[in-house]
Amino acid sequence: MAKTKAVYQFKEGSSQMRQILGGKGCELSEMTRIGLPVPPGIVVTTEQCLIYQKTKKISKDLRAEIFKALAYVERQVGKKFGDEKNPLLVSVRSGAPVSMPGMMDTILNLGLNDKTVVGFAKNTNERTAYDAYRRLIQMFGEVVLEIKKEKFDKIFDSVKEEHGRKQDIELTVDELKEIISKFRHLVHEETGKGFPDDPHEQLMLAVEAVFNSWNNPRAITYRNIYKIPHDMGTAVVIQAMVFGNTGQNSGTGVAFTRNPSTGEKKLYGEYLINAQGEDVVAGIRTPQPIEKMKREMPKAYKELERIAKLLEKHYREMQDMEFTIENGKLWMLQTRAGKRTAAAAVKIAVDMVKEGLINKEEAIMRVSPSQIDQLLHRQIDPSVKVSPIAKGLPASPGAATGKIVFTADEAAELGKKEKVMLVAVETTPDDIHGMIASQGILTSRGGMTCHAAVVARGLGLPSVVGCEAAKVDLDKKTLTINGKVFKEGDIITIDGSTGNVIEGEVRLIEPTISGEFDTFLSWCDSAARMKVRANADTPSAAKGARKFGAKGIGLCRTERMFNDPERLPIVQKMILSETAEERKKWLAKLKEFQVKDFYEIFLAMDGLPVTVRLLDPPLHEFLPKLEELLAEIAELSSKKVDERVIEEKQILLKKVRELQEFNPMLGHRGSRLGITYPEIYEMQVSAIFEAAAKLKKDGKNPIVEVMVPLIGNVNELKILKPIIKKTADEILAREKVKLNYTIGTMIEIPRAALTADEIAQEAEFFSFGTNDLTQTTLGFSRDDAESKFLQLYLSKEIYKDNPFEVVDYGVGKLVDMAVKLGRSTRKNLKTGVCGETGGEPNSIHFYHGVGLDYVSCSQYRVPIARLSCAQATIKEKQKGKIKVSKTD
Amino acid sequence: MAKTKAVYQFKEGSSQMRQILGGKGCELSEMTRIGLPVPPGIVVTTEQCLIYQKTKKISKDLRAEIFKALAYVERQVGKKFGDEKNPLLVSVRSGAPVSMPGMMDTILNLGLNDKTVVGFAKNTNERTAYDAYRRLIQMFGEVVLEIKKEKFDKIFDSVKEEHGRKQDIELTVDELKEIISKFRHLVHEETGKGFPDDPHEQLMLAVEAVFNSWNNPRAITYRNIYKIPHDMGTAVVIQAMVFGNTGQNSGTGVAFTRNPSTGEKKLYGEYLINAQGEDVVAGIRTPQPIEKMKREMPKAYKELERIAKLLEKHYREMQDMEFTIENGKLWMLQTRAGKRTAAAAVKIAVDMVKEGLINKEEAIMRVSPSQIDQLLHRQIDPSVKVSPIAKGLPASPGAATGKIVFTADEAAELGKKEKVMLVAVETTPDDIHGMIASQGILTSRGGMTCHAAVVARGLGLPSVVGCEAAKVDLDKKTLTINGKVFKEGDIITIDGSTGNVIEGEVRLIEPTISGEFDTFLSWCDSAARMKVRANADTPSAAKGARKFGAKGIGLCRTERMFNDPERLPIVQKMILSETAEERKKWLAKLKEFQVKDFYEIFLAMDGLPVTVRLLDPPLHEFLPKLEELLAEIAELSSKKVDERVIEEKQILLKKVRELQEFNPMLGHRGSRLGITYPEIYEMQVSAIFEAAAKLKKDGKNPIVEVMVPLIGNVNELKILKPIIKKTADEILAREKVKLNYTIGTMIEIPRAALTADEIAQEAEFFSFGTNDLTQTTLGFSRDDAESKFLQLYLSKEIYKDNPFEVVDYGVGKLVDMAVKLGRSTRKNLKTGVCGETGGEPNSIHFYHGVGLDYVSCSQYRVPIARLSCAQATIKEKQKGKIKVSKTD
Repeated sequence: MAKTKAVYQFKEGSSQMRQILGGKGCELSEMTRIGLPVPPGIVVTTEQCLIYQKTKKISKDLRAEIFKALAYVERQVGKKFGDEKNPLLVSVRSGAPVSMPGMMDTILNLGLNDKTVVGFAKNTNERTAYDAYRRLIQMFGEVVLEIKKEKFDKIFDSVKEEHGRKQDIELTVDELKEIISKFRHLVHEETGKGFPDDPHEQLMLAVEAVFNSWNNPRAITYRNIYKIPHDMGTAVVIQAMVFGNTGQNSGTGVAFTRNPSTGEKKLYGEYLINAQGEDVVAGIRTPQPIEKMKREMPKAYKELERIAKLLEKHYREMQDMEFTIENGKLWMLQTRAGKRTAAAAVKIAVDMVKEGLINKEEAIMRVSPSQIDQLLHRQIDPSVKVSPIAKGLPASPGAATGKIVFTADEAAELGKKEKVMLVAVETTPDDIHGMIASQGILTSRGGMTCHAAVVARGLGLPSVVGCEAAKVDLDKKTLTINGKVFKEGDIITIDGSTGNVIEGEVRLIEPTISGEFDTFLSWCDSAARMKVRANADTPSAAKGARKFGAKGIGLCRTERMFNDPERLPIVQKMILSETAEERKKWLAKLKEFQVKDFYEIFLAMDGLPVTVRLLDPPLHEFLPKLEELLAEIAELSSKKVDERVIEEKQILLKKVRELQEFNPMLGHRGSRLGITYPEIYEMQVSAIFEAAAKLKKDGKNPIVEVMVPLIGNVNELKILKPIIKKTADEILAREKVKLNYTIGTMIEIPRAALTADEIAQEAEFFSFGTNDLTQTTLGFSRDDAESKFLQLYLSKEIYKDNPFEVVDYGVGKLVDMAVKLGRSTRKNLKTGVCGETGGEPNSIHFYHGVGLDYVSCSQYRVPIARLSCAQATIKEKQKGKIKVSKTD
Repeated sequence: MAKTKAVYQFKEGSSQMRQILGGKGCELSEMTRIGLPVPPGIVVTTEQCLIYQKTKKISKDLRAEIFKALAYVERQVGKKFGDEKNPLLVSVRSGAPVSMPGMMDTILNLGLNDKTVVGFAKNTNERTAYDAYRRLIQMFGEVVLEIKKEKFDKIFDSVKEEHGRKQDIELTVDELKEIISKFRHLVHEETGKGFPDDPHEQLMLAVEAVFNSWNNPRAITYRNIYKIPHDMGTAVVIQAMVFGNTGQNSGTGVAFTRNPSTGEKKLYGEYLINAQGEDVVAGIRTPQPIEKMKREMPKAYKELERIAKLLEKHYREMQDMEFTIENGKLWMLQTRAGKRTAAAAVKIAVDMVKEGLINKEEAIMRVSPSQIDQLLHRQIDPSVKVSPIAKGLPASPGAATGKIVFTADEAAELGKKEKVMLVAVETTPDDIHGMIASQGILTSRGGMTCHAAVVARGLGLPSVVGCEAAKVDLDKKTLTINGKVFKEGDIITIDGSTGNVIEGEVRLIEPTISGEFDTFLSWCDSAARMKVRANADTPSAAKGARKFGAKGIGLCRTERMFNDPERLPIVQKMILSETAEERKKWLAKLKEFQVKDFYEIFLAMDGLPVTVRLLDPPLHEFLPKLEELLAEIAELSSKKVDERVIEEKQILLKKVRELQEFNPMLGHRGSRLGITYPEIYEMQVSAIFEAAAKLKKDGKNPIVEVMVPLIGNVNELKILKPIIKKTADEILAREKVKLNYTIGTMIEIPRAALTADEIAQEAEFFSFGTNDLTQTTLGFSRDDAESKFLQLYLSKEIYKDNPFEVVDYGVGKLVDMAVKLGRSTRKNLKTGVCGETGGEPNSIHFYHGVGLDYVSCSQYRVPIARLSCAQATIKEKQKGKIKVSKTD
C-alpha cells in the first residue's frame, strides 16, 4: 500500500511540488491554483513511477486511487469516463521534474470506443469524434502496443489516396470510419488481441506505458548526456480533453508573453482555427500570427492577453504558453519559461526591472554568458531560411560572408579591397597577416584548439574549423563540398556559432549594443565584486577594449611592439650587439617607438590602470628560424652573391645557434632577460615613464603598473625592483611630474605561487598568467600538446575541458594558494588574472571564489566577463563560497 | 658598573661557558677544572667586548676587575706583574665562541720593559729574556700600534746580516739588545710617542686591541662568509707566560691524541726543544716527531700521554693539543677537537665505539658526508708534496693521472690501451664514449653544473672544469698553462676534490673500503629510518649499486636500453610504423632484448625491490636530429646515390618533422606515450614479468615495482593501470608463478603533487623525480638554464644552491604537500625520491623530515646517502622535526 498520497488533483498541487508532480503537472496545478481556466485533471506522482520500476505492475491501491480521483474530475466537467451518452475523454502525458522534451510518451483521447464515440459525436460533431477515435487507436497502437508507425500511416495514406483526398481535413466521416475499422484490424493482426475497448483498461495501460517510457533507451541516453539522475521518475498527468477542432469557434495555439526574438513586450505566437494542438506543430496547415486572433476571436484573444499578463506577474518571467479554444472558451494547457534569443533575453531582463517585476540581480542571472557572446558578433538574419551545405566545428562565433581565397598572401592582398574568406586545410603562425585581412576562416582540419580557432577567437573573427566535408585542393585552388566545386572568388558564408557553411551570400545582421545592453552591462558592473580589464598591446586595441567596457588594461605585452616590421631590424641589431654599450645604442632607437606606443595606450586608457609587462619572450624569437636561415645561406652561396652578404648571414647564424634552446618555454626569458641585460628593462621603463610624464603634463591621468614577467624567486625581484624604481623616479624627477605607480609580477610558474608569501614582500600586485602557469603546472607545452595529444586527452576525458580554456583544478589550487600566501605578507595585495581563462565564465566564477580583484581578457570577451563577474558575485550571495571541483 | 661578572679565573670556568668565555677561554678553564697543568690565567667575557664596541673605552670598573683577578694569578705563580725582581709576564689572546682561526690578534710577553727584563733575565737567562722583549715590542708594535710588520723585519734582518747571523738563534744578547733599541726607536718614530713601559698600560692597550680586532675588516668578512653572527663578541684570555725556550730541558709542541691521517690510536705530533710555540708553526726549524720525545724527555712524554688519555676520556673525542715544557715541567696551552682525514674520521669513530668512549649514534654524527665522498675516490698520496700549476673548479671528486688527449674519439680509442686524460674546452653529449674511456676530464670552460661536471659525477670520474688558466688549442692539439705547453701524450694529474692540476704523474692511493668503513656504514643503515636505493639501468650498474650497499633500485630507466646501437634501428622502425600492427612486430623484437636486461637486473638485485620506469622520453629522441638529417640528405643528393636511399631518408625526415616539438620537456612523453601507444607499455610490462617469472622459477626472489612516468592527472593512471595489470597478470597466470608487484608513479610535474590525493587512489607508490619536478616548478629547462643563466643566478645568489643539486625550497614544498595529500588517501603509500638530489646530504635531511621511505641515487653516492639518512634520523631525535628554510 502506498504510504504517501499517490494521486493529486490539479487544485491540490503547486509549482513548489515539481519533484513529485513533475514539471507539467506542477505548472498545470499552479495555473489551476491561481484560478486560470485549465481543464481539470490529476497527477500520479513520480514516487509511483519509481515503485513501478521495481514491481512492474500497477497495484490495486493505485488503480483505485486513480479512479477515485478521476471521479472528482468527472463531477467537475459533468461527464463520465466510459459513459456512452456523455463520455469524458482524457489525455495521458508524462512529465518529469526536469524537462526532457520529446523523450517520453503522450496519448490523447482515451475513453473512446465504438460505443462512447457515438455519444461523443452527439455532444460535438461526427467528424470531430471519429477523427479523435482514429487518432486514439494510432497513438495507443504505437505507444502502448508498440506497433510501427509506418503501418498506421500506410493504411491512412491508402484510404486518402483511394478517395482522392489531399488534406486530412477533406476526409469524410465514412472515410474516417473506414480507417478506424482498418486500424482495429491492424491491431488485432499485430497483437493477436483486439483493441482494448474498456476505457478503464485503456487508461491503466496508458499509465503503464508512460511509466515504462522513463526507462526507454532514448530517455536513458538523454539523461546520461545531460547528467540527469536516473532515480527521479516521471509523473503522469491525466487531464480532461478539450477540443480545438469542433468548428470555426474553436482553435489551438502557442504564444509567448513577449517577442522571443526581440524581447518586445507584446503577445507573440501562432494559432489555427478548428485544429488540435499537434496540427500546429506538424506544419500541415500554416498557422496564423496571433495578432489575427484579435480580430477573428476577440473574446478569446482578450482572455489570452489577460492570462499572459497574470502569468508574467505570477512567474516574474516571460512565458511560453499552449492553449486551446473549445467552442469559444479558452483553456490553458501549458505554461513555462520561454526560450529566447540573446537580444530578447537582455531586453526582457532590463524591461522587467523597469516594470518592477524583478530586481537587477534577478535580471543579471537571467542572461547567460553565451548569449552575450552571440550579441557581440554578426549573425545570420534569423528571418532568412538557410540550407547549410556542410557543417564543421563552431570555432569562433559570428557569421561572415566573403569571396574564397586559398592563401594568406592572397587574403592579405585582396582583403584590402573586398571581403574575402580564407579557406585552408589548416593555418600556421605565418598566415596571421592573411587571417587578419579576412572576414572569416574555414579550415578542413583541426579541432576547437587548433591554430585557426585560437587565433580567430583572439581576433574576434568568425571561424569554422575541422569541416571534413570541405575538400581543399591548393594546387587546383578549389574547394569541393559534396561534389560541388567552388573556385577562387566564389562567395560562401560561414556561421562560427553553429559551424554551418552556406553557399553564396546570406543577409547578416550587425551586432547591436543597444541601449538595453549598455544598461544591462552597467548593472553587471555595479553588482560585480571583480573588475574586468582587457589584454591589449596596441592603441587601437586599447580603444576597442574601452568601448567594450574594460576598466583598464591587465596585460600590455611590450614584445608585440618589437615585432613591427619597421622595428624588427633594430631589435635584431640590439641582439647581435657584442657589448652593453652597443646594445644601449640600439635600445635608444627602440625607445623612441616605445614612448609613442605607451603614450597612445595610456591616452586611450586615461584614468584607468594599465599593466605594462616588460619584455618576456626569449631573444631568439626575434631572429630567423635556424632551418630557414640555413636554407637561405645555402641558396645565397649557390648564387655567388657578394661575400659580405653571406658573411652577415653567418654572423646571424652564429647568434641563432648560440641562443637556440631545447625548451624555450622554460628558457632564457622573462625576468631572466632583465637580470642578464638590465639595459633592456631600463629602456622599457624609461619609455613607459617618459610617455606617462608627457601625458600627465598634457593634463591626463595615466595610471601605470609595471609588471615583471616570469618571476620564480623573490631574489629576482629584489634585484629588478630597485632598477625599475631608480629609472622611473629619475625620469619623474627630471620631468618634475608626480605619479604614483606600482611594481608587480606575473605569477606564471609554480614556484612563484608556492613562494608567494616571499614574492609579495616585493611585488605590489600579482597577475596570474594562466597560459604559462598551466603549461608548467601540467607539464604541457601548449603548441606541442594541442598538435600531439591534447585532443586524445579530451576525447578520453582525462581532462574534461581544455585546461588552456577553462582553469584546471591543479592550476586553480596554485592560484588559491598564491592569493592566500601573498595576502599573508601584503594585506592589500592586488590580484588579477591575465591568461586566456580570464574571459571564460566557469573560470571567472572560480577566480571570484578565490578572491581575485580583477580578470583581464581579450577585448571581445570583456562584456561576457562583465556578466560573469556579476553572476559570480550574486551566486556567492545566494549559495555561499564557490568551490572548485576536483579532477573529473 | 658591570652588573654581571666581567672577569673569570680559569678555575671558575668550564666548557659549558663557551658563549661568554669563548672557545679558548672555556677549554683552558675546563682543563684547569679537571686538574691539568695549565698556566693560570683569567678571561674577560665576550659581554665586555660588546660593551666596548659601543663605548670604545675600557671602564674603570673593568680595569679594576682585571687587575684584581690578575692579583690572584700573581699569587698562584708567586710573581708580580711589573715587578722588577720577579716579574709576571702574560699573553693576551682573543677567543670567540666560534673558532675564527687567525682572524684576530695575540700578544705575548706583556709585562716587559727595560727594568723588568733584567729581573726576568735573572730568573731565566739573558738570551730568553731579551729575545722575549724584542718579540713583545714587535708584536705590540704591529697589533696595538699598527706599525707595518715589514719595518720591524727590515731592522731585524739588517742586524742579522750585519753580524753574519743566519739563524735567529745565533743572535747574541748584545745583538738582541741592539735590535730592541732600534725597535724602540722605530716605535717613537712611527707613533710620536715612546713604547709604553708601564706594564699596566701595555695590558690595557692589548685588551683594547683584541676588542678592536673583533671588528677588523678581515674578521667581518670571515663572519659574513661563514654566517657567524656579528653580535657574539670575543673574550680576552690573559694568561701567565711559560717559556719553552729556556734551554735544553724546555720545549714546545703540538700533538693529536690519535693519528689524524690514519686514525691509529697513538700519540701523533711534533715538538721542538728550546723553542717557543710560534717557532713550530713558522717552520724556521724542523720539528721532531713526537716519538722522539719519548727518549729525549721521557718524563714530559709520559705526562703528555697521561693527559692525552684523560682529555679523550673527558671530551670523548680525538684532541689536538698545544703544550710547552718549561724547565722539564709540561704545561697545556690549548686543546680542541682535532681535524682529521676521512679515513681517520671513520676509524676513530668506530674505534671509540669499541673502546666504549662513545655510542654508535655519536660515531655516526662525527663523520661528514663529504668525508665519505673522499673515501670513495682515488686520492693523491698525502705524503707526496705536490705543486699545482693551475686550479679549476672541483667538479667531480677523486684524483686521476693520464696522457693528454684532445678529442673524445681519441680518448675512446687510446683509452682501451692506456690511461688517458680528456682535455677539452667543454664537452657535449656526443663525447660520452670518450669520457667513459678516460681516467679524468679537464675542461677550460664550464661551471659546477656544466655537461662535463654532471656526467663525470654520474660516472664517478674525477673532473676539474672551468680551469681558465688552461688554454686549449684544438687545432694545434696543445694545452698551455702559464706559458708551459703540453702536447698530446704528455702526462698530467688532476685532483677533482680540490680543483688542482699537476704536471706529470703523482702517486695515487686507491679508495679502501676498510673493515671499519663497512662496520660504520652498517651502523648507519641500522640507525637510519630511510632506506637507500640506487638509480641503475644496466646489470653492471645494479651489481655496483649492491656493492655500495644499495637496498634496491629506485629508478631503472628502460629507455637507456633502447639506445644501444644494436637496438636503435629496431626502435626507429617501431617509430616509423604506420599501423599499430606493424609497431607491434618491431616491439616484439625489442622485447627479446628487454627480457634479458630485466632478468639480469632482477638477478643482481635478488630479494631487493627494483622500480622499473616505463618508457619516458619523447620518441624523436630516438631519431636523428633534424639539422643533421637535412645535411645528410643534401650530401646524399649531391652525390647522386641510389634514389631509394634518399627516399628512405625522406621518409625519416618526414617523421622527424612530424615529431618535432617546441618544448620536448613538456611534450609528448611519459605516460602520454603510453596512452597514445599502449602497445609500447604492454611490450615493456610483458618483458618485465616474463623476466621476473623466469627468475622466480629459477628459485630467485624478484621484487617488481612498475613505475609510470609523468603522471599529471589521476585519469591517466585510471587508463594505464588496468592495461599494466592485465598484461602482468596474464603472464603470471600463463607461467603459473605467484608474484606480488606494485604499480606506482613518478611525481615529476607540479599538478601531480597538487593532486596527489587523487593520484594516490591509483598509485601504490610515489617516486619524486626531482630533476623534472625542479624544471617544471622553477620553469627552468636544465640544459638551457645551465648554459644560459644559471651561473649568473648562482653568482648573484638568487638561488643559493644549484636547485638541480640541492632540493629547492619551492620544490620541497610540493614534495611535502604531495606526501601529505597522498597519505591522506592511501595510508601506507610508499614514497621515495629518485632525482639527483636523492644523493645530496642537505636534501636527504629534508626528505627525512617530510617522511619519505627511501632515497635513490647514483651508485657512487650510495654510501654518502646511507650516512646522511642515519644522520637525519639522529638529528631529528636530538632536535625534533627538521624544517626546511625559506628562499635565502
